[in-house]
Amino acid sequence: MSSKAQRSSYLFFLSYRTRWSDNDQYSHVNNSIYYHLFDSVVNAYLLQQCELSSHSAQIGLVVSSHCQVSTSTNFFSPVSFPQVLDLGLRVVKLGTSSVTYEVAVFEQGRDVPAAVGGYTHVFVERASRKSEPMAAALREGLSRLLSVKESLESKL
Amino acid sequence: MSSKAQRSSYLFFLSYRTRWSDNDQYSHVNNSIYYHLFDSVVNAYLLQQCELSSHSAQIGLVVSSHCQVSTSTNFFSPVSFPQVLDLGLRVVKLGTSSVTYEVAVFEQGRDVPAAVGGYTHVFVERASRKSEPMAAALREGLSRLLSVKESLESKL
Amino acid sequence: MSSKAQRSSYLFFLSYRTRWSDNDQYSHVNNSIYYHLFDSVVNAYLLQQCELSSHSAQIGLVVSSHCQVSTSTNFFSPVSFPQVLDLGLRVVKLGTSSVTYEVAVFEQGRDVPAAVGGYTHVFVERASRKSEPMAAALREGLSRLLSVKESLESKL
Amino acid sequence: MSSKAQRSSYLFFLSYRTRWSDNDQYSHVNNSIYYHLFDSVVNAYLLQQCELSSHSAQIGLVVSSHCQVSTSTNFFSPVSFPQVLDLGLRVVKLGTSSVTYEVAVFEQGRDVPAAVGGYTHVFVERASRKSEPMAAALREGLSRLLSVKESLESKL
Repeated sequence: MSSKAQRSSYLFFLSYRTRWSDNDQYSHVNNSIYYHLFDSVVNAYLLQQCELSSHSAQIGLVVSSHCQVSTSTNFFSPVSFPQVLDLGLRVVKLGTSSVTYEVAVFEQGRDVPAAVGGYTHVFVERASRKSEPMAAALREGLSRLLSVKESLESKL
Repeated sequence: MSSKAQRSSYLFFLSYRTRWSDNDQYSHVNNSIYYHLFDSVVNAYLLQQCELSSHSAQIGLVVSSHCQVSTSTNFFSPVSFPQVLDLGLRVVKLGTSSVTYEVAVFEQGRDVPAAVGGYTHVFVERASRKSEPMAAALREGLSRLLSVKESLESKL
Repeated sequence: MSSKAQRSSYLFFLSYRTRWSDNDQYSHVNNSIYYHLFDSVVNAYLLQQCELSSHSAQIGLVVSSHCQVSTSTNFFSPVSFPQVLDLGLRVVKLGTSSVTYEVAVFEQGRDVPAAVGGYTHVFVERASRKSEPMAAALREGLSRLLSVKESLESKL
Repeated sequence: MSSKAQRSSYLFFLSYRTRWSDNDQYSHVNNSIYYHLFDSVVNAYLLQQCELSSHSAQIGLVVSSHCQVSTSTNFFSPVSFPQVLDLGLRVVKLGTSSVTYEVAVFEQGRDVPAAVGGYTHVFVERASRKSEPMAAALREGLSRLLSVKESLESKL
């Protein structure tokens, strides 16, 4: 997790209204819910900006994922229903058949994320589940989410 | 389910972005998800309009629930991720210690709901879980969601 | 909901361990979770006893569902994590292209269900989503879950 | 993720039946579901073996989490409903106010996990949400899940 993550670090945003069942019995959004939101913003981008469809020959499988919540010293102030959360997405590594996303969860009106995480997608052929180079439209769409720094590095 | 349900039948609305995991393996929003959305719009209303809080002495427990999807003749066209759904809420029965909500799920731009359902909340004392008459602020807030017809009947 | 539902009323059982996230902020299993369990016991039966597979030409779509929790007078004693729940399944109506299931949720060691509900599946052709008569193996498997009373009626 | 993780590496086990809604539209258990299972096996252990209750003065908040699925070369064979999964738990780091768990997900009959992950709990006072040293019973219970290697290290 970058210690300097803020809204301007991300390139694609969607807002998600939290749900009653997102809160666990400690009355805050359960950590597992962040992974559902990561999946949602990533797949929304793939469907809307990268020509992925529910019939695409390639699908992305998650091979590893992680999330870290923000803490200030030793005090915890988790988000909770019915807050609306802004999800910011960027690509931090773009390979031939895989991509690593970073997603930040922002409370509305705040510039410092409540949590930052992400995951790595490996693209596989839908039926055989064997990995293969990602389709051109997919790679083109994902490359638009590379931040400037990563973009420069990927050209070297 | 009223055969004539449409947007104008409902008095409080919230929009929910569907999530990737709402789709089941048939690539449409699983019926169970509607109940999570019902819970969300109802509890958002209770928190924002009826003085309910996470520390309230009274809590609402669901005793029965139901949902019916709309079908046209024998063809099914379920909603699916990443659609945004508008949830419309009204109160169809307001008792002393219980309330029955009706919730309609609308696809954006449509006036006929994709599904209509609801549930009955019984209000209980938080610790003992015994039912008791609902607080005045709660009843006042809920009465504002009674449609005209039910409102007239409840005065008789 | 039958007022006399007990374990002997059901013909197929599976046990489900509750999950931490099944509890909502009132520290009991959220009503919506019951619908996830209904879906699970029904689809397990279809896959294991009725020759349904993830490639079947027919799929079942839920058109209506309902659930009612048991209450004794005015006291509520909901189930909660980490309890293990026994799900009992039977068929209460078997039509040409549709079936109505009833599912009871039992706490371990109890004969009276904590909740009873169910739903109606309409079988449709996977691609067109048009309803059609259910396959022979499906109907045969489902007919074995008809209780004696319903079985006699369906022969008349 | 340890490259050598196997059943004998873990000290507490629970089996979880997968649910229909665990499968996403690619017909396998969605990665996010693993985190719900991690939460379930950890909290079951805390409640049953560490004197945690729903009224405990201390609660554990997740500050970071991660998960990695197993892959053999470039072929993916994810788990799917209706499989039953065995969750193995151990403690890999035990601090004064925090603990780091590792959880492995095993398909029944297999000794190599389908996925390995975990998370770090920080214990806080329930109302103030300030971190504090964990209670003696909690620390004692968690120390029983330290594997031999970690146990030796923690004594140095």
